[in-house]
Amino acid sequence: MTAAPVWSVDPRTGQRREQAAVEATGADVDRAVRAAHDARAALADRPARAALLRTAARLLDEDHERVVAAADAETALGTARLTGELARTTAQLRAFAALVDEGSFLDVRIDHADAAQTPPRPDLRRWKVPLGVVAVYAASNFPLAFSVPGGDTASALAAGCPVVVKAHPGHPATSELCAGLLRRAAAEEGLPEDVVVLVHGFDAGVALVGHPLVAAAGFTGSVRGGRALFDAAAARPVPIPFHGELGSLNPVVVTEDAAAERAEEIGAGLAASMTLGTGQFCTKPGFVLVPAGPAGDRLVDALAGEVSGAAAGVMLDHRMRDAFVAGVRERAELPGVEAPVPPGADGDHGVRPGVLTVPAAALAAGDGHDALLEECFGPVTVVCRHAGDAEAAAVLARLPGNLTATVHLSGAEAAGAGGRAGPLLAELTGLAGRVLVNGWPTGVAVAPAQHHGGPYPAATSTATSVGGTAVERWLRPVVYQSAPQALLPPELRDDGPPGVPRRVNGSPEAGGGAARRTP
Amino acid sequence: MTAAPVWSVDPRTGQRREQAAVEATGADVDRAVRAAHDARAALADRPARAALLRTAARLLDEDHERVVAAADAETALGTARLTGELARTTAQLRAFAALVDEGSFLDVRIDHADAAQTPPRPDLRRWKVPLGVVAVYAASNFPLAFSVPGGDTASALAAGCPVVVKAHPGHPATSELCAGLLRRAAAEEGLPEDVVVLVHGFDAGVALVGHPLVAAAGFTGSVRGGRALFDAAAARPVPIPFHGELGSLNPVVVTEDAAAERAEEIGAGLAASMTLGTGQFCTKPGFVLVPAGPAGDRLVDALAGEVSGAAAGVMLDHRMRDAFVAGVRERAELPGVEAPVPPGADGDHGVRPGVLTVPAAALAAGDGHDALLEECFGPVTVVCRHAGDAEAAAVLARLPGNLTATVHLSGAEAAGAGGRAGPLLAELTGLAGRVLVNGWPTGVAVAPAQHHGGPYPAATSTATSVGGTAVERWLRPVVYQSAPQALLPPELRDDGPPGVPRRVNGSPEAGGGAARRTP
Repeated sequence: MTAAPVWSVDPRTGQRREQAAVEATGADVDRAVRAAHDARAALADRPARAALLRTAARLLDEDHERVVAAADAETALGTARLTGELARTTAQLRAFAALVDEGSFLDVRIDHADAAQTPPRPDLRRWKVPLGVVAVYAASNFPLAFSVPGGDTASALAAGCPVVVKAHPGHPATSELCAGLLRRAAAEEGLPEDVVVLVHGFDAGVALVGHPLVAAAGFTGSVRGGRALFDAAAARPVPIPFHGELGSLNPVVVTEDAAAERAEEIGAGLAASMTLGTGQFCTKPGFVLVPAGPAGDRLVDALAGEVSGAAAGVMLDHRMRDAFVAGVRERAELPGVEAPVPPGADGDHGVRPGVLTVPAAALAAGDGHDALLEECFGPVTVVCRHAGDAEAAAVLARLPGNLTATVHLSGAEAAGAGGRAGPLLAELTGLAGRVLVNGWPTGVAVAPAQHHGGPYPAATSTATSVGGTAVERWLRPVVYQSAPQALLPPELRDDGPPGVPRRVNGSPEAGGGAARRTP
Repeated sequence: MTAAPVWSVDPRTGQRREQAAVEATGADVDRAVRAAHDARAALADRPARAALLRTAARLLDEDHERVVAAADAETALGTARLTGELARTTAQLRAFAALVDEGSFLDVRIDHADAAQTPPRPDLRRWKVPLGVVAVYAASNFPLAFSVPGGDTASALAAGCPVVVKAHPGHPATSELCAGLLRRAAAEEGLPEDVVVLVHGFDAGVALVGHPLVAAAGFTGSVRGGRALFDAAAARPVPIPFHGELGSLNPVVVTEDAAAERAEEIGAGLAASMTLGTGQFCTKPGFVLVPAGPAGDRLVDALAGEVSGAAAGVMLDHRMRDAFVAGVRERAELPGVEAPVPPGADGDHGVRPGVLTVPAAALAAGDGHDALLEECFGPVTVVCRHAGDAEAAAVLARLPGNLTATVHLSGAEAAGAGGRAGPLLAELTGLAGRVLVNGWPTGVAVAPAQHHGGPYPAATSTATSVGGTAVERWLRPVVYQSAPQALLPPELRDDGPPGVPRRVNGSPEAGGGAARRTP
């Protein structure tokens, strides 16, 4: 049997560019996981992990022209966007290196023995240890920042976990290039290259989540694919954590007063956000509650005007393009749905952005409009026109979980007037991991307070996939009871290395651990 | 159809004492969950939560004679042990009240807007919000501390989550009594009584985990029951977190030098730990690797001597007693297994503690000895005799995950001599959530650094069920982007309430929030 080829395809033409790799067989996946598992001891050394992450960032930056060109050829995202995405990716790798150096993610807690307590308390020293090999399922829409060198890989390596990445079929050549650079970084730092291993193919992805030596998984993709893998992770003899980001409508609510105050501004802002990157952001606003009546009409007119003038685009691959064309057709044919700007195919390879509208009454009745409450990946948004608070609330109550939920308020409402904004914000809090006021959800700031997750299907866990706390997904606590100093990890010893923040007997250690610098 | 009665049974006689309750029907469970769900808004008030927990502790303490008598009549655990367990339970409720007051579990992080960044950073304010109704599956072996008023309930209420408890059938009257006190505490604090609702019955437990308004579950019990509920939680249209503690062997490794140094002391310590509470602790040492040869023989002789002199006991209920008698018989009949002290039935209602031994070679061969690698609930331990490090390592490699793993070292080994203790500790770290040196795992100190969990099946998640961080299981982060001050929760406002620790722009807020006391 010959190995099945994996082709790199140009989405602008649908033509094969080159054979990028071959699909991994079950035996290949087994070898990949065992190789990563055998490499895990080398990652126990924190300075080595930090060095690996920094060297990976440097090699990616040094090779930026080749990386961006490879990604653009396979995704059509454009060199400007991809140059920015690569900068974000390498900044993220460096941010995790800094986090490894700092050490607070180890969550060190020391309780000294206390014979005066009833019962006497033994010496307890807790920190967090890596779970083991992490399976990373790469996303299509960020071929760098959420793919091979992306946040899941960076956070897993930071935690001390080797990674087996299942490449996204939309950018296999980019994946090979990036994996090669990560492996080279490992070699340059004296680590086994197999701290990062890449596999291709649908069957390989299924085999990966079932492998006994895989200890956790990270996923960014569709509800269907993600749920199948989540189910497989949960059904294992030994279930493993599966941190998936599966899909999000990212609802927007526009109040009557906000529409009256700035219908055109909101319509234009919405058009820009939903068409950004050909509508392929996981935070694209895909469902917008707009009041019926003249102010809402002005908003929809402004939105339609902007979207009808927006450029056609090329989606990440033809499978997604076909799904978009079929998805918008199915939705447009539902009773009561209108298309002030019809979305759909543009020529043989592109797509046209568009806008659909539906009366809230049709949705609230629940008569077969469920497709409107599911994410449609690509440049389309559904505007739901409602006749007041009660109807809007009935629609909100039917929404699944989301990465983001947004409300547009009037100036007076934002200042607390009328008393309606507070309850509305509370309602949106139940729906999402990030709640925005008078903004747009596309663009996820990398910041300490950021949270990128949300109720299912936005995420399959309560964790975030963006920001420093993403590392927590790959760790578990272990406490040592009455272990002699000589046998403890250095970070848990009385004379541990300086700098790592620790809590001792319930309180932060004096000087944040800096006191340990001087004996 | 009449409701099925739930009987309170005396384990010392096997006789029914009284009808304690009726089994909940599907409609009852639905009503219970909806009532709890409707009560959740009242728990948003943090001071009210803290007051509820403190008043619950006070009412339990005030009624201690009745509570302890009810629990003893149903569990045969004895009034001394149960008096201690009640003290631990009310201390735990008060500890969670203090945690609610202190507020660091809200994990508040504020990043101010920064227009100078590329791209400009919006104002981001993150905290953690309660998940919703928590289903608590009560344990048999701690009718107070891991049952209705136990750690799962206390931590869920602390998080702001109402609780529906599925009572353990072994102590239904105690459960009713405690639930009544918790509900009275709610009423006294002006909260809806339905912040805690109790249901009985196997079918009710199954219905509970599948209810759409249940947002998370906590469980302590057997691998079989826990796994069935875990699977149901994962298979829901919207999966929910299931934090289960399912079973643990709690392996102990005794080195050759330790046996040579203090065989009798280790044997006696093991006997005391494995027979404590009629062997019904989740941390009972159930599997002990002891070297072959004369030092190990002395250890086994000491163990056998102590255990043969230990008193017979009464287990929590007759179902568990029958499972113990069948379990030890099955294990004793395996090839190569011997019983220096045969465990089994004692009269019509009791059990005799015992010791089984098996050569490591029999286990390592994997010829049908898997039952020895599964927890046998009750006063029995399996001593596995090994012929050296390689054989011991082969057995360790076959063990499932555990709450605890223990090593007994000689004085010289504990000081680092020989270089064998370090690798051994590292190996045990992979097997458990708590690793002990020269101690016994029964007795779980309630301390800030404590961790009660471990790799599957010890736990189904990386969380702990004991200690303050147990509250994290019932929360999820939400970040507000560009929300006006007036609409934010008080804890996230610039002039928020004093005391709650916050991180601002990546660093702890000056004065730990105390600075907010003075305007």
